[in-house]
Amino acid sequence: MRVRILVSLKDSVLDPQGQTVKNALHTLGYASIKDVRQGKVFELELEGISEKEAGKIIPEISDKVLANPIIEKFSWQILEKG
Amino acid sequence: MRVRILVSLKDSVLDPQGQTVKNALHTLGYASIKDVRQGKVFELELEGISEKEAGKIIPEISDKVLANPIIEKFSWQILEKG
Repeated sequence: MRVRILVSLKDSVLDPQGQTVKNALHTLGYASIKDVRQGKVFELELEGISEKEAGKIIPEISDKVLANPIIEKFSWQILEKG
Repeated sequence: MRVRILVSLKDSVLDPQGQTVKNALHTLGYASIKDVRQGKVFELELEGISEKEAGKIIPEISDKVLANPIIEKFSWQILEKG
């Protein structure tokens, strides 16, 4: 099974990295870009577990290892079953 | 318009960050995780441009600013039109 987990800062948390990217893009003349938020993406290859088990494990590891739940949120989707 | 851009290392490029995450998860007992690849995600808010213009701008800024085309690949999707 192939799973994608997106981790990004909560909307209420400032994102200096995203701001820097936005400023760089403005300097290059891309004025249509009003906001940039940067986050992390993880693609996991899972073996030998059911979709139901994955639905238990993924939020668990996202909370424990991949994201900092104080300032970050995560979402996930299955890219490839089986 | 809201656009999501995913930037990740090309499959042929080693991903030590992903390996470290994988090892950490194994140490915690998640043996079903066979592989982890880590990348970046950017969410951009665009204003005053058409979808066609976005289709020109997004690959341009991905290549120039967001990704290093030597070792990274990117994909993008429109999350919210208008």
